[in-house]
Amino acid sequence: MRDILDELFDVLRQRRSADPTESYVAALHDKGLNKILEKIGEEATETLLAAKDAETGGEAERKALVAETADLWFHSLVMLSHLGLDHRDVLDELARRFGISGHEEKAARSK
Amino acid sequence: MRDILDELFDVLRQRRSADPTESYVAALHDKGLNKILEKIGEEATETLLAAKDAETGGEAERKALVAETADLWFHSLVMLSHLGLDHRDVLDELARRFGISGHEEKAARSK
Amino acid sequence: MRDILDELFDVLRQRRSADPTESYVAALHDKGLNKILEKIGEEATETLLAAKDAETGGEAERKALVAETADLWFHSLVMLSHLGLDHRDVLDELARRFGISGHEEKAARSK
Amino acid sequence: MRDILDELFDVLRQRRSADPTESYVAALHDKGLNKILEKIGEEATETLLAAKDAETGGEAERKALVAETADLWFHSLVMLSHLGLDHRDVLDELARRFGISGHEEKAARSK
Repeated sequence: MRDILDELFDVLRQRRSADPTESYVAALHDKGLNKILEKIGEEATETLLAAKDAETGGEAERKALVAETADLWFHSLVMLSHLGLDHRDVLDELARRFGISGHEEKAARSK
Repeated sequence: MRDILDELFDVLRQRRSADPTESYVAALHDKGLNKILEKIGEEATETLLAAKDAETGGEAERKALVAETADLWFHSLVMLSHLGLDHRDVLDELARRFGISGHEEKAARSK
Repeated sequence: MRDILDELFDVLRQRRSADPTESYVAALHDKGLNKILEKIGEEATETLLAAKDAETGGEAERKALVAETADLWFHSLVMLSHLGLDHRDVLDELARRFGISGHEEKAARSK
Repeated sequence: MRDILDELFDVLRQRRSADPTESYVAALHDKGLNKILEKIGEEATETLLAAKDAETGGEAERKALVAETADLWFHSLVMLSHLGLDHRDVLDELARRFGISGHEEKAARSK
């Protein structure tokens, strides 16, 4: 079974070759690595600020934190894609560290 | 089927209540939100620098970028856990934005 | 004698009460602390990327790094101003740490 | 008349060639640009968090913000020094943008 990150990464891969004037993802790749990394820096900052506000805030602040974290992860995925890596590399690294099943899973799937 | 992030998040949840002198995760929660957010800032920075080095480097630099991105995602998960949120909230937000199956999946699972 | 940061800080103080539609500084204060801190995060990121590029680049990359560092310091000054602090507080702290003359200078000036 | 940043930058220049086991500044240069930039990322993060806490806090939180901003500026100076630039380049850029006297001052001083 494929999970959300697998599906999302497929979408990102398809959009990479789209027209940069029509796709945000294509436009990011077209502008190059620095632009993608600037977005990661921006979204990391916004995540920190949203987390501070969520600590003392209510449901709206919690939703905003989820949205900022999604932005951060999304732009991390674009970065990985730009450099020929993918989310499975990161998940396998996490699985390996924590002794969970991801590593074997990678060996099993056809990549 | 459960994926790596599900399993990892379960580990994080268990370790939250461990002895802070024995578990890094418990120690982070014990030090509080600012400490967790400092780590996110640090890992975001190290991810950016590793990405710059990976662009011109070889296999060692690519492995280092995967490790730094894993650190960034890991500390994001600790932040979500600290504030009573989880990775599914973020994945569902990404699924919703991209029109993929995550949203329905959330409705289906017992949370 | 007044130095550049003294003069710049005076300009920032004056613009704080300007029309937000006409002054970038007034607009930042109007949008609030989070917006100012987002800019610091953005400019810190751009400074890091510019420094990486300056290490291997030429005069254009070095000029870009100076411009990004200026952006970072500028937005730090706006943050200090927003919270009722100023550059002298920071310079005095640096002077105190390094045993140079700033601290006494502060005692002497009329603030 | 020399100001605090001039004096501080002289100190930084002297320490650059000190024994890395005895001087923090020499150790940073010895470890290289990535280490210096990691510190800037860390201190930028700590400045943001301290600013959020200072907004709602008291005198202790304001002092902490001044200390974090000092750390951020200090490590910016080390970065400039590492790459053969200095604080005057940044101050002149700020002066030029704001139409204040720094630019002429630079032309006048013997560098």
